[in-house]
Amino acid sequence: MTTTRNLLEIGDLADNEIAALFERASAYMERPPDRSLDGRICANLFFEQSTRTQVSFQAAQMRLGAHVVNLSPAQLSLATKGESLEDTAVTLRAIGVELLVARHPLAGAVADLASAFAGSVINAGDGTHAHPTQGLLDAFTLTREFGSLRGRRIAFVGDIRHSRVAHSSLEVLARLGAELLCVGPEELLAEGDLTAEAAIERDLDRVLPSLDAIVMLRIQRERFAAMPLENAAYIEGYQLTQARLAALRPEAVIMHPGPYNRGVEIVDAVTSEPRWRYREQVRNGVYIRMALLHSLVHGFSC
Amino acid sequence: MTTTRNLLEIGDLADNEIAALFERASAYMERPPDRSLDGRICANLFFEQSTRTQVSFQAAQMRLGAHVVNLSPAQLSLATKGESLEDTAVTLRAIGVELLVARHPLAGAVADLASAFAGSVINAGDGTHAHPTQGLLDAFTLTREFGSLRGRRIAFVGDIRHSRVAHSSLEVLARLGAELLCVGPEELLAEGDLTAEAAIERDLDRVLPSLDAIVMLRIQRERFAAMPLENAAYIEGYQLTQARLAALRPEAVIMHPGPYNRGVEIVDAVTSEPRWRYREQVRNGVYIRMALLHSLVHGFSC
Amino acid sequence: MTTTRNLLEIGDLADNEIAALFERASAYMERPPDRSLDGRICANLFFEQSTRTQVSFQAAQMRLGAHVVNLSPAQLSLATKGESLEDTAVTLRAIGVELLVARHPLAGAVADLASAFAGSVINAGDGTHAHPTQGLLDAFTLTREFGSLRGRRIAFVGDIRHSRVAHSSLEVLARLGAELLCVGPEELLAEGDLTAEAAIERDLDRVLPSLDAIVMLRIQRERFAAMPLENAAYIEGYQLTQARLAALRPEAVIMHPGPYNRGVEIVDAVTSEPRWRYREQVRNGVYIRMALLHSLVHGFSC
Repeated sequence: MTTTRNLLEIGDLADNEIAALFERASAYMERPPDRSLDGRICANLFFEQSTRTQVSFQAAQMRLGAHVVNLSPAQLSLATKGESLEDTAVTLRAIGVELLVARHPLAGAVADLASAFAGSVINAGDGTHAHPTQGLLDAFTLTREFGSLRGRRIAFVGDIRHSRVAHSSLEVLARLGAELLCVGPEELLAEGDLTAEAAIERDLDRVLPSLDAIVMLRIQRERFAAMPLENAAYIEGYQLTQARLAALRPEAVIMHPGPYNRGVEIVDAVTSEPRWRYREQVRNGVYIRMALLHSLVHGFSC
Repeated sequence: MTTTRNLLEIGDLADNEIAALFERASAYMERPPDRSLDGRICANLFFEQSTRTQVSFQAAQMRLGAHVVNLSPAQLSLATKGESLEDTAVTLRAIGVELLVARHPLAGAVADLASAFAGSVINAGDGTHAHPTQGLLDAFTLTREFGSLRGRRIAFVGDIRHSRVAHSSLEVLARLGAELLCVGPEELLAEGDLTAEAAIERDLDRVLPSLDAIVMLRIQRERFAAMPLENAAYIEGYQLTQARLAALRPEAVIMHPGPYNRGVEIVDAVTSEPRWRYREQVRNGVYIRMALLHSLVHGFSC
Repeated sequence: MTTTRNLLEIGDLADNEIAALFERASAYMERPPDRSLDGRICANLFFEQSTRTQVSFQAAQMRLGAHVVNLSPAQLSLATKGESLEDTAVTLRAIGVELLVARHPLAGAVADLASAFAGSVINAGDGTHAHPTQGLLDAFTLTREFGSLRGRRIAFVGDIRHSRVAHSSLEVLARLGAELLCVGPEELLAEGDLTAEAAIERDLDRVLPSLDAIVMLRIQRERFAAMPLENAAYIEGYQLTQARLAALRPEAVIMHPGPYNRGVEIVDAVTSEPRWRYREQVRNGVYIRMALLHSLVHGFSC
């Protein structure tokens, strides 16, 4: 837990701060955003490719009136000239960057950046460790759906081990009182993979009828040396199929952090389901990031 | 012909809409642009490299007060995470992108994007199929030059087959009443390569003295497996040389969509000709794109 | 020496213009910048990777209200379509770009761009030739430190031969009356490598106690076919070590254009020294670039 106003993981936020974020994000949905970052420079430093998250942060920053600087993997072959992450952070701060949004393939690398950057840093994903704004947008989306999450049964399905999204989402949902399940094969889910209180379940079909929400995860192939199980076995056990859609309660919702792989974790029909909330998640992501950017600069009160 | 406000090909525009675009673009030349896209997010999604077209769209968007998000080929290795074009479109729309400008190496790919994106899409070039804003800027440039194009003899010279520019320009110029010629060797120009009423001509020297305008095209080497004819033969038959410049009427104009290859389709002297209109084309391109962006959002009336 | 308002090398500026730049940059530090580039389009055309310089120019441009277009090496594989630098410059000007900031691996390439671009061009580094805004920010930083530089002893240490920074900094500091030393081994420093009046010195330890300022340079490995001397020998002779820090006067300052290589030209302790001015250089760089951008458009008077 740091005392600077970074967001490196969900633990950096107090309960009342999460509540304030949700309140501000909801308010931004109703009325045109303020220009509360007017003239401030935000830099987006992405060492891994990203469409969704980087564009979402850009949209949030521009709507708040910030100046936006994007640094993409191609530009960031820092190794070329041998500059360290920390020294890059010092340089960007000296240029006048006030808010740094960073993604990096190594867990902990964004914390290293933050330790050197005398401004606010937001972790946009570091290896398999954390992706706190995705966690917040998932929790915000579910809160808008259900009001209180106390006692709601929410399952994460698939590659929990490599999912920084799952780690951050589980953490914030646990704090909001949800009853959490993680569902997956041993190769992708063991006791040690959990960062928050959640029950491990191997049999998706057994738990499906009891769920209020199901979060389907992408298999993060880029984080494996070799795939530990056959595609067919995975699909058999964990794909959200037509039959499983039928077993899910009508008032349950289906989420996915994206990008989703049609034919792997979901069948095509899922994305035309009325219970599918992917668009809401993406849209809410911009508002929650606006609320966060505002709050890191001006404080979390609403 | 779609009913949404996309521009995927010239056929998406009615005659009075083309006229309204030209009127608005001319007006933008005279007075500072309005901020009619203030706060709206435009995304430029280029799966092929582009300097000219992408910067032109950016300039147009920024001058209208829009927020601009650029997604370049390096960032767009979507294959990495297996997301489809359509799903990328859905995501960008959910983030709040209202106008999507897209270029793709495959004909039809931008229409696929548009089918999934519930906002306006502008085709900035899809394979050899269409590049409608280039067609509009060519027609706008010629209209400013000659007033009515009715009966004006305009020749396109060179690689008609692979030129999406030629396809879109021929289409809009035909609708404006021009008398069109396509000039080139059989390897680059056959009856089936034409998308609009135009006469095919093999002998450039025969038609040169009768032209009001000549549009020189680049050989799109990147679209050939192997070059179908010798450079020397091409130059002999179709290069705009000093001798051919002399044969061209003094009041005729010379155009090129760019980038031009000095020593292939044109000799160096062409670009210092008073009849050379390349700069006007590029400049007009920004104004016509401003008019189009404005009109897709606010309607085509002037 | 050109008569257009470009900045290709320090020689493009008169003495009173340098003074006016410093005055304006200082003023920008005190009060919020004007919007004196409101609505003008600046393009940053970087054919070499850059974090520091490109972000600094972007920050300067955005703070002055300009529209910013970035063209990075990945987009600028102009060779793909065979367009020359000069023709790219013509195109960008026709699009409406008024200020062009360019970096290129070849000495003289930015001057080629400028010869074709009918607007202002700023050289952000061309091969080993010049990097005038780095020279200006070094001189500005030292002027803020010492007031007049007349008679101040300033040493540049290391790879003078390949350092466009050293070339431009030496040039402006010589004009401001500093007493200049260049310190390095023969492999990296010969008489012919100097572009301004400076004494050559091989023995760093001999001159260290007499200096007002020391500028450590990075070995530009990317400009060598093979390293001409052993790392150990370089470190022995020229690394700024703890012992050498002790030999440096307490009121002297230490500078580096960045990126610095810890363990090569400096030891780690240097960056936590009170005499270390790297952050000030970077911060001042934004202000001097703002002053320059303003002055190229509106004139150099203050």
